[in-house]
Amino acid sequence: MMTTQTDFPSQTLAKYAANLQFTDIPTRVVRKTEDLFVDWVGSALAGKGARAVESIARFAGNMAPIQQQAYPGSAEILIHRSYSSPMFAAMVNAAASHVVEQDDVHNASVFHPATVVFSPALAVAQAIGASGQEFLTACVAGYEVGIRVGEFLGRSHYKIFHTTGTAGSLAAAAAVGRLLHLSPEQMLNAFGSAGTQAAGLWEFLRDAADSKQLHTAHAASTGLMSAYLAKDGFTGAKHILEGPQGMAAGMSTDADVSKLTEGLGTRFATEETSFKYHASCRHTHPAADALLKVMQENQLQIDQIAKVITHVHQGAIDVLGPVVDPKTVHQSKFSMGTVLALAARFGYAGLNEFESSFSNDDIQAFCQKVEMVLDPEVDQAYPRKWIGKVTVIAKDGKTYAGRVDDPKGDPDNTLTRLEIETKAIRLALFSNAATEAEMRDVIEQLWKIETLATIGNLL
Amino acid sequence: MMTTQTDFPSQTLAKYAANLQFTDIPTRVVRKTEDLFVDWVGSALAGKGARAVESIARFAGNMAPIQQQAYPGSAEILIHRSYSSPMFAAMVNAAASHVVEQDDVHNASVFHPATVVFSPALAVAQAIGASGQEFLTACVAGYEVGIRVGEFLGRSHYKIFHTTGTAGSLAAAAAVGRLLHLSPEQMLNAFGSAGTQAAGLWEFLRDAADSKQLHTAHAASTGLMSAYLAKDGFTGAKHILEGPQGMAAGMSTDADVSKLTEGLGTRFATEETSFKYHASCRHTHPAADALLKVMQENQLQIDQIAKVITHVHQGAIDVLGPVVDPKTVHQSKFSMGTVLALAARFGYAGLNEFESSFSNDDIQAFCQKVEMVLDPEVDQAYPRKWIGKVTVIAKDGKTYAGRVDDPKGDPDNTLTRLEIETKAIRLALFSNAATEAEMRDVIEQLWKIETLATIGNLL
Repeated sequence: MMTTQTDFPSQTLAKYAANLQFTDIPTRVVRKTEDLFVDWVGSALAGKGARAVESIARFAGNMAPIQQQAYPGSAEILIHRSYSSPMFAAMVNAAASHVVEQDDVHNASVFHPATVVFSPALAVAQAIGASGQEFLTACVAGYEVGIRVGEFLGRSHYKIFHTTGTAGSLAAAAAVGRLLHLSPEQMLNAFGSAGTQAAGLWEFLRDAADSKQLHTAHAASTGLMSAYLAKDGFTGAKHILEGPQGMAAGMSTDADVSKLTEGLGTRFATEETSFKYHASCRHTHPAADALLKVMQENQLQIDQIAKVITHVHQGAIDVLGPVVDPKTVHQSKFSMGTVLALAARFGYAGLNEFESSFSNDDIQAFCQKVEMVLDPEVDQAYPRKWIGKVTVIAKDGKTYAGRVDDPKGDPDNTLTRLEIETKAIRLALFSNAATEAEMRDVIEQLWKIETLATIGNLL
Repeated sequence: MMTTQTDFPSQTLAKYAANLQFTDIPTRVVRKTEDLFVDWVGSALAGKGARAVESIARFAGNMAPIQQQAYPGSAEILIHRSYSSPMFAAMVNAAASHVVEQDDVHNASVFHPATVVFSPALAVAQAIGASGQEFLTACVAGYEVGIRVGEFLGRSHYKIFHTTGTAGSLAAAAAVGRLLHLSPEQMLNAFGSAGTQAAGLWEFLRDAADSKQLHTAHAASTGLMSAYLAKDGFTGAKHILEGPQGMAAGMSTDADVSKLTEGLGTRFATEETSFKYHASCRHTHPAADALLKVMQENQLQIDQIAKVITHVHQGAIDVLGPVVDPKTVHQSKFSMGTVLALAARFGYAGLNEFESSFSNDDIQAFCQKVEMVLDPEVDQAYPRKWIGKVTVIAKDGKTYAGRVDDPKGDPDNTLTRLEIETKAIRLALFSNAATEAEMRDVIEQLWKIETLATIGNLL
């Protein structure tokens, strides 16, 4: 990558995103991006019918026309198979793809890239008729930027801010900016506009409120807007990330500017992204997998367990701690107790398990047996590694220790393409957004996305 | 006002905004709101042709249809006399009304209410056919909420964040929420959605970037969206302002929760709002007026002055300090030196003075003679009082001290209706957005707004 002596970190990152070519991306990263996209399509379809998502879709319909047929410049609202301007398609698809908590996650940045990258990138690619290679390149740019911004903002940021909402605006701007062929200077302006609109607070979790979907809708639409404005000459702060009145100054106390450019061009953070196996907040997965391991290895049944102590990182306590008595399916996905109860009961905390059973008496009873304690080793490894450690105390007094270093879905314990397909189909069926046959057709097309001359409609 | 023992501050504020009736508002506050609205119309029209504003308008046109005729449910884009959905009309009008730095300001909150309240309120009032009294009531709700949120977030917030952008989302939500007749519970949800989207960083000032207009556009559109969503059942955090992962936790170190409800129902913060006389950042006005006073009282001419020391509050240093060598008209409005030079040269730093002369050699030379120093008395009075204090050193060695306790436009030194009309007309003529005759017609209508059955189109 060409950089000059006077380049500063935001600028280096903007140049990278603007200049990234398909041929710069190793084949294994292209394959991984396809995996992530198919996985995202499942999540986006699973959001159909969710109250918060449908509400955002109704707002979109109030503010711009929604058509039943594609028209020049339109983009697809996946859950409704309808068409609107790219801003509103991105907004609705972003809300939809984050609601069932099955979308991907990057560990070190604690950031969910797919929902804020694929939503605006697909909308704009459809609207402008971009090729499959252009689309994939833009998405990698979005992932690389968003992940690095998340890492840069650090753990102090994530204590209060939903990084997917904040870093997500920049990720969306990078992906859309690359599709619009922004110059490096324009890309930096897009970052400035996206960063100065970046928002998203964790406070909603306490009330089981709908904000999580609003955060991704906001990130996708503001990032998209920032890129369009930059293309039109609209300027933004050059140092929006690291400047004295920029994002880190306002929203972080441990920002690390070196993270913005770490390994740019050689390290592809995209491939470090994890798939979610359980349909819950990622902070619950390591402990759930560790509990399952203990139960399998020791042939323990749920009714033999008296207590589960989960040894966790501080971030898990920050996000999950406020959820003490979950009232809704969505809130229960942020309850360590509910997730472990469902895992213990069904061997898996999936969408259907949450829907059918989160409030059952036996699940709620088990929920009360689960404790979180801060573990120095787990905390120190986090966020680069998400170690799962549990102590299980059986009713007969025996104690078992369980540990998982790579929860299911992490790069070192990833899903196969068959598992990804199965998950995506299950997600679409969950919401009746598509039939199995339709999903098999879509997925078959998507495995060939690199060869497509234009990104057409998916459904 | 009815409150219960279990009410918490955000809830009390939401109840107030939802329940406010026209008959609750003292007549003098109604008159002041009309004054502020006429003043805002001038600012909104003055934004016509500004590059950043037109860019946002083009984006709006790309994402939703813009018509030349009003249609059911449409709202007016003032600078173009065109019509779109209320979200985009609010977005464009908000961008337009903040660009020439002539829109109003509330001292204690360091917040510009008009641009983020009238823009969405007018758009929604037009779209739903609200009456003049409903419109005025909604605007007062928006002012009262936005100002209190700004005061609550405090000085530490304003060091990094553009309060008009952040508190502005809640102000917009309150105004639109009142127009949509949200219940108190829905209003609290609207606050939650607005607060979790609140954004706006000062970093752009250093680069003379276009973000200030984006901030008001963002506040107006996200606040509007939050109110529409709340009407549709979408929920938000109940403690978005004061909660442990809310706005103050993330974006302030000196938040004062008592400010949220101070004098609700008896104190009308709306009437504390100041008009801007000079067309520059308000932080420059006290010193400019003090300098003008010294020059008038001592018959000093600009070329007799060797040096001007302005004794200012820290907020002025934070916002104006980074602007050392202004490159654009907009940036020069944040240069204490340029503003004092124009005031010294023309007796007034108005739109035309900036456009024609900010980069002239004599203005730039005078600019270098101006210093800012922190003054403990001024700083302590701020933000409730914006005291202007200058020391002028003449070329003959004589030293003059000047002081103004109420800069022109402050409530104790306010503009008359004639001055407000004159200013609004001058603003519209500046951008060729309307003729003097058209403006006189519009203003005549607006002085009768209380009696209008529906808020129609202005132009």
